[in-house]
Amino acid sequence: MTWPPLRDELRGLEPYGAPQLDVPVQLNVNENPYGPSPECVADIARSVAEAASTLNRYPDREFVALREALARYLSKDTPHGITPAQVWAANGSNEVMLQLLQAYAGPGRVALSFAPTYSMYPEYARDTGTQWVVGHREEDFSLDLDHARALIEEHRPAVVLLPSPNNPTGTALPHDAIAGLCEAAADGLLVVDEAYGEFRRAGVPSALELLPEHRNLVVTRTMSKAFALAGARLGYLAADPALCDGIRVVRLPYHLSAVTQAVALAALRHERELLGKVDELRDERDALVGWLREQGHEVAESDANFVLFGRFRDRHAVWQGLLDRGVIVRETGPDGWLRVSVGTPDETKTFELALSQVTEEVA
Amino acid sequence: MTWPPLRDELRGLEPYGAPQLDVPVQLNVNENPYGPSPECVADIARSVAEAASTLNRYPDREFVALREALARYLSKDTPHGITPAQVWAANGSNEVMLQLLQAYAGPGRVALSFAPTYSMYPEYARDTGTQWVVGHREEDFSLDLDHARALIEEHRPAVVLLPSPNNPTGTALPHDAIAGLCEAAADGLLVVDEAYGEFRRAGVPSALELLPEHRNLVVTRTMSKAFALAGARLGYLAADPALCDGIRVVRLPYHLSAVTQAVALAALRHERELLGKVDELRDERDALVGWLREQGHEVAESDANFVLFGRFRDRHAVWQGLLDRGVIVRETGPDGWLRVSVGTPDETKTFELALSQVTEEVA
Repeated sequence: MTWPPLRDELRGLEPYGAPQLDVPVQLNVNENPYGPSPECVADIARSVAEAASTLNRYPDREFVALREALARYLSKDTPHGITPAQVWAANGSNEVMLQLLQAYAGPGRVALSFAPTYSMYPEYARDTGTQWVVGHREEDFSLDLDHARALIEEHRPAVVLLPSPNNPTGTALPHDAIAGLCEAAADGLLVVDEAYGEFRRAGVPSALELLPEHRNLVVTRTMSKAFALAGARLGYLAADPALCDGIRVVRLPYHLSAVTQAVALAALRHERELLGKVDELRDERDALVGWLREQGHEVAESDANFVLFGRFRDRHAVWQGLLDRGVIVRETGPDGWLRVSVGTPDETKTFELALSQVTEEVA
Repeated sequence: MTWPPLRDELRGLEPYGAPQLDVPVQLNVNENPYGPSPECVADIARSVAEAASTLNRYPDREFVALREALARYLSKDTPHGITPAQVWAANGSNEVMLQLLQAYAGPGRVALSFAPTYSMYPEYARDTGTQWVVGHREEDFSLDLDHARALIEEHRPAVVLLPSPNNPTGTALPHDAIAGLCEAAADGLLVVDEAYGEFRRAGVPSALELLPEHRNLVVTRTMSKAFALAGARLGYLAADPALCDGIRVVRLPYHLSAVTQAVALAALRHERELLGKVDELRDERDALVGWLREQGHEVAESDANFVLFGRFRDRHAVWQGLLDRGVIVRETGPDGWLRVSVGTPDETKTFELALSQVTEEVA
């Protein structure tokens, strides 16, 4: 037997993850470039000190205070409101997704998405023994609803994973697409992954609005992006309370530490400040899209804090040229495209200058 | 279809977890009764404040500093030392176990343990699609090595889960049992769960000593008990570096938050203070075992921070009587037995007084 005795389907695979390189301008993993303010840092430290004095005890397994705060926050995005019983949270939205598939997919069931899309989805499926089926997106990365419906009817997926805005393309889904696919999915879950939801353009609604009409709709979010809290690992969802109850059966007991709960609650108290930065980033994003188009690049419409642009005959050469100039972006998406996160104005300038030089050299 | 559309094997199941009740004397989930000192709390707060200023960035996916600190700590328990490459960590040892089964067990493979033992083990198996096989322990909760070997030869388990000391009985495994079962398991992993390892009595060695001789040996630990950090969720293991590498394929990216890493590192800096409390708890445990025996109770030998005692014709009545007097213990283990965690001297006195009253009433 080969050592280590890994499962056959895992042999020879590389662990998921973008390179963690020490580069001055980090525009490769869609982080928020703005750290929390000194006030927010002080609040986090105070809250953790308070939690620390009883760290010998297990945390609140039901994270009641955090569910209440998340429900209050989400309620601003839907006229119907969100109750704490509709909220579930875990260590990053990737743990939320894993738990969803453990409870509602798994061996003998199918999960479905449409490429190009978030490259972790097939890993969640693999790690839960779920069969993975993938459809395609149109040339402009939108969904062909007839194709989507046909694929759902053919495979009867237990879970459909639909990011909106989509990663790595930035494409948001219109309401009628979500509603139509909820109906097509019948008793399968339709998970709209709104990890980048707060960055959507004015007039683009959140799928949260549709929850009362579709009990099989799940909307996931993360504090990593809009709340600038990637380092704290807090993902969450809103759904029918019965779906949250089902997740409880598979969640590891005490999966959310008392410290994580304290940090997330502190950050939620600084919502106004943190979301102010989101507004700046949306403007910065729109300006970046404009600049890239002026340079003659193809650019996908973006409702996220990143932009997919191209197309390059040799995208790796462009990626490497940017890296040589101290700017790291992500080599992802269909061939020929690159994805750049929206940084500070200074970071954007550095990126634009570097890209101008590189394209002159490479093209 | 029934709603929610849970997997068939999950329907009707209750989520795992002891009741979280607001009771003055909490001796039901083997928590360390001593919170961290003011110095340790201050160090945690300082460390988290430092981490908080860059929480917009993803954490170190490889948690290098933490692996180094854990390796240094574990090296004190084995003359062979432990290197950072031998260390892996996750959010609680239950996430460590889940990752081990995801990578090395799963559909078509078998996990094996011996009852009575930790009641989460079958849930890890269920949630990874692993077939669960369970053998038995002797009357005194020790392992019958012939029975264990025969079961291993019959089922060829991919993973054998052996807590030492065992939960809920407190029974430690001798070295020759571990060595013999490592050989019997061949290329299957033998996981010695030392969650309560630091509480073992003088002269009882750690399975860490056996690592150089058995590449299929995995020793897991937690900071929940000896480090009084149940609220922070940090479990870890020591094993062949190739086994750690395999886990990387299934771990969720950035599964350990920057905050968790900072808190664990701070607590490890206060090792001397925290382990001083462990010494007090071991003495308290031995005294409690003595007192229970003096009262005529049956008591399992304990190398942990809890004691299994009995036997009661109606253990639930005893449990309820204790609860009525403000003391919560755990109704677990074979029928007739109860498990009590070792608390502070005052908590032990309250428990002893309550138990004397209850046994007079119930017996």
